[in-house]
Amino acid sequence: MRTIVINTGTELLLGDVLNSHLAFIAREIFPLGLRIERQVTVPDGSAIRDAIAESLDRADIILITGGLGPTTDDITREITADLLGLKLQHDPAIMKSIETRAARRGFRLTDRVARQADVPEGATVLPNEHGSAPGLYLAANQTKKWPHLFLLPGPPRELHPMFQTSVLPILRAIVPPESGIGRRTFRIAGLGESLVEEAIGAQLLEIPGLELGYCARPGEIDLRLIGEASILDQAERIIREKLGPAIFSTDGGDLEDAVVKLLTERRKTLAIAESCTGGYLAHRITNVPGASAVLLAGHVTYSNQAKRTMLGIDPRLIVEHGAVSEKVAQAMAEGALVGANADFALATTGIAGPGGGTEEKPVGTVFIALAARGRATKVEKRFFPDDRPTFKVLTTQTALEMLRRELM
Amino acid sequence: MRTIVINTGTELLLGDVLNSHLAFIAREIFPLGLRIERQVTVPDGSAIRDAIAESLDRADIILITGGLGPTTDDITREITADLLGLKLQHDPAIMKSIETRAARRGFRLTDRVARQADVPEGATVLPNEHGSAPGLYLAANQTKKWPHLFLLPGPPRELHPMFQTSVLPILRAIVPPESGIGRRTFRIAGLGESLVEEAIGAQLLEIPGLELGYCARPGEIDLRLIGEASILDQAERIIREKLGPAIFSTDGGDLEDAVVKLLTERRKTLAIAESCTGGYLAHRITNVPGASAVLLAGHVTYSNQAKRTMLGIDPRLIVEHGAVSEKVAQAMAEGALVGANADFALATTGIAGPGGGTEEKPVGTVFIALAARGRATKVEKRFFPDDRPTFKVLTTQTALEMLRRELM
Repeated sequence: MRTIVINTGTELLLGDVLNSHLAFIAREIFPLGLRIERQVTVPDGSAIRDAIAESLDRADIILITGGLGPTTDDITREITADLLGLKLQHDPAIMKSIETRAARRGFRLTDRVARQADVPEGATVLPNEHGSAPGLYLAANQTKKWPHLFLLPGPPRELHPMFQTSVLPILRAIVPPESGIGRRTFRIAGLGESLVEEAIGAQLLEIPGLELGYCARPGEIDLRLIGEASILDQAERIIREKLGPAIFSTDGGDLEDAVVKLLTERRKTLAIAESCTGGYLAHRITNVPGASAVLLAGHVTYSNQAKRTMLGIDPRLIVEHGAVSEKVAQAMAEGALVGANADFALATTGIAGPGGGTEEKPVGTVFIALAARGRATKVEKRFFPDDRPTFKVLTTQTALEMLRRELM
Repeated sequence: MRTIVINTGTELLLGDVLNSHLAFIAREIFPLGLRIERQVTVPDGSAIRDAIAESLDRADIILITGGLGPTTDDITREITADLLGLKLQHDPAIMKSIETRAARRGFRLTDRVARQADVPEGATVLPNEHGSAPGLYLAANQTKKWPHLFLLPGPPRELHPMFQTSVLPILRAIVPPESGIGRRTFRIAGLGESLVEEAIGAQLLEIPGLELGYCARPGEIDLRLIGEASILDQAERIIREKLGPAIFSTDGGDLEDAVVKLLTERRKTLAIAESCTGGYLAHRITNVPGASAVLLAGHVTYSNQAKRTMLGIDPRLIVEHGAVSEKVAQAMAEGALVGANADFALATTGIAGPGGGTEEKPVGTVFIALAARGRATKVEKRFFPDDRPTFKVLTTQTALEMLRRELM
C-alpha cells in the first residue's frame, strides 16, 4: 500500500526543529510491510490543503502530523474536513477530557482550546494521553475517492504513544497480510565503508531479490538488507563469515548497548577517565538502562591538577610527555582502574579543538587507553581532525570498540 | 523567491537516518530573506524525476540533496540532465581531483566513481572538499522554463562546507536585495510555555505585521519573531520587560554556552558531581569550545563507594537519608567544590529509571545541588517521570539554569 507522510509546521521549514516524525513512523510501519513512498513538509496554514489534495489519488494511506493544537495556525482538522466535504461535529466526550486536563493543570479554557473537540463526521477519535488534541482517523472511501487518512499531533511525546497505541492496530487491520519481505540491519564498527563493501559487496550484489543499503555514520556503518527470509539468510551467512566480529548489533542497538550487555553478562565492572571527551563516554554508557550495575566511577579530568588528584598521575609524566600522550592515557586508565577497583578502565586524552593544537600534536590527536586487571594496558593513537562533536563521537566509538573486542 | 528542497535517499524514508538537511538549509538561507516553502523526501531512483518535474513551475529555486555518489542508485545527476534535455559531459578537471583523492586514500577507481565527473552542459561545478562527488548549479532558464537548480551531496559533512563556500555566494547574487524582514529568537529557560504565553502573548498579538512562533523543548522554549526591524524592536521591548532574566540566548546558543560564557567572563571555575545524569552535564559543558578554562573536574559517581572515595561522602549520610536525597546532593556538590578547589559545583542525584523507584521516591525523583565558595549550598528537588534521555535533559537544564541565575 502506497504510504505518504505529510508533516506540517513552520518551525520545521525554518530549521528550528529537526523532523524526527519521518524516521519514527518509517520504523514503526516497516514490520507491517509498509514503506513510506514520499514525505512532504509544508508550513502551517493553507499549504496543507494542497499537500493533502495532491496526495489523495497517489496514496492508499496518508499520515499527517501537526496542526491539531489550539493556536490560530492549527487548521489541519478544518482543512481536511473541508477538502473531503465533511461537517465538523463537537464531541462532548473529548471536551470533557480537555476540561479535566485543563482543571488538573490549572489552565483556563479558551474558545481555541474547545476547537480541539471538533471531529469530522465519521472519523474515529484517537485518544491523546499526553496532550489535549486527540488524533483522528478517516477510513478510505472508494466512492468519494479518498484513501485512509490519519491526522496526528505534532509533538513527539504526544505522537509516539498515540501511534503505538491507536494507529498501529488500525494499520494492522487494513494492511494486507505480510508479503514475507523482511529487513535485517547489521551494525559494524571499526571498519570503513570501502572495506565493508570490498569484503561483501560483490557477493551480495549477486543475490537476486536482495535490496542492499549502506549507511555510514561517524565510527560505524549500518548494512541494511531487505528481501525474503531465504534470501536474507543467504546474505547473512556471507556477512557473518566475512565480517563476524565487527558486527556489534543486529537489533538496532548502539555500541554502548553492546558493551553494557557484555559487561553485565560477564559480571565485569568499568571505570572511566575522560579528558577530551569530557563526560561523553560516561554519558553514553549511562544512557543504557542497567548501566549502574557495571559503571563504578567516571572522572572528567580536564585540568592537569584533576589528573593528579583524581587519578594519582605523577606530574612529571605530564611534564615529560605532555597531557596528550600515550603515557598519560595509560596512567589515566590505570589510575581509574585502581581507584575504583574495577575490572576494566577506559581513558581518553586528546585535543578536541578548535584551540590547543601544536605542530607535533595537531587538533584531532587523541590517545585512547584500555586497562584491564592483571593485563597490560593497551593504548591506541588516533587522529580525528573534525569538529568538536564529531571528535567526541569518533573517540568514544574507538574506546567502546576496544572494550567490546576485549570482552568478546 | 519560492524555494523548494528535495531530499533523496531511501535511508531517510526507512527511518535509518534523520533528515538534518532541511533544518541546516533553512537556517543558512533565512538571512538572505529566503524561506523554504515546501520540502519533499523521495527514495533513490526514479521518484526523483517526479519530484523535480512537479517543482519546476512552482519554485524559483530548487535545492536537491543526495544521489550524486558512485553507487547504482545515485542517479540525480543523470535524471536532472535528462529532464532538462541537457547532455552530460565528462569533466577532466573533476576526474583529476577524484583520482588524486582516491590515490591518497588507496582506493581503486571503478567506472562508477568516474560517473561523478559527468557534468550537464552549462552547469557550474561546486567543489567538494570532503568527498569525491562535486555539487552542480544550473542557472534559471526562462526560455526553457526551469528555475535555479542546485544538486548537492547527501552526507552532511560534504554538504555543509559546500553550501557555505559555494551555494550561499550564488544565492546572494540571484536573490533580490533583502526585504527588510528579519527574525529574532529568544531562548527561555525555567518557565513553561503557558506561562510564557500568558506573560507576553496578548501584547505581542496586538502588534500588526509580527509573525510569532513558539517552540517548546524539554526544559526550554524558543520564542520566534519575524517581521520588520521596527516591529521586532517593539516586540523585543515587551519580551525583555516581561521575561528579562529568563532569556538565556538571542543568538541560538544553548544554555551550556550561556553558562560557560558567564563563567569565563567572571573568571570562575566549576566542578561537577553526577550520579543520575551519568556524565551528561559534563558532556554539555565540554561541548562548548573553551570549557577547559572553566571546568576543573567532573565526577560520575553511580555507586555509593564512588560517592565516598571520590567525593568524601560520609556513608552514614547515605544510610540515613538514601543516595537520592537532599543531604547527599548537598554533600556531593560540596565534596566536588572542595576537592577541585572550584568556585562553583553542581551535583545531581536521582532515579532515572526504568528501575530503582520506590513508593517514597518514584522513578523521576531528582535532587540538584549548587555549591558556591563561601555561601550556603542550594538544593532543588524536582520530579521528571520521563524516559531516560528526557530525564537527563531536564535534570541538566535545571542544574545549568541554577548556575546561570547565580552568575547573572
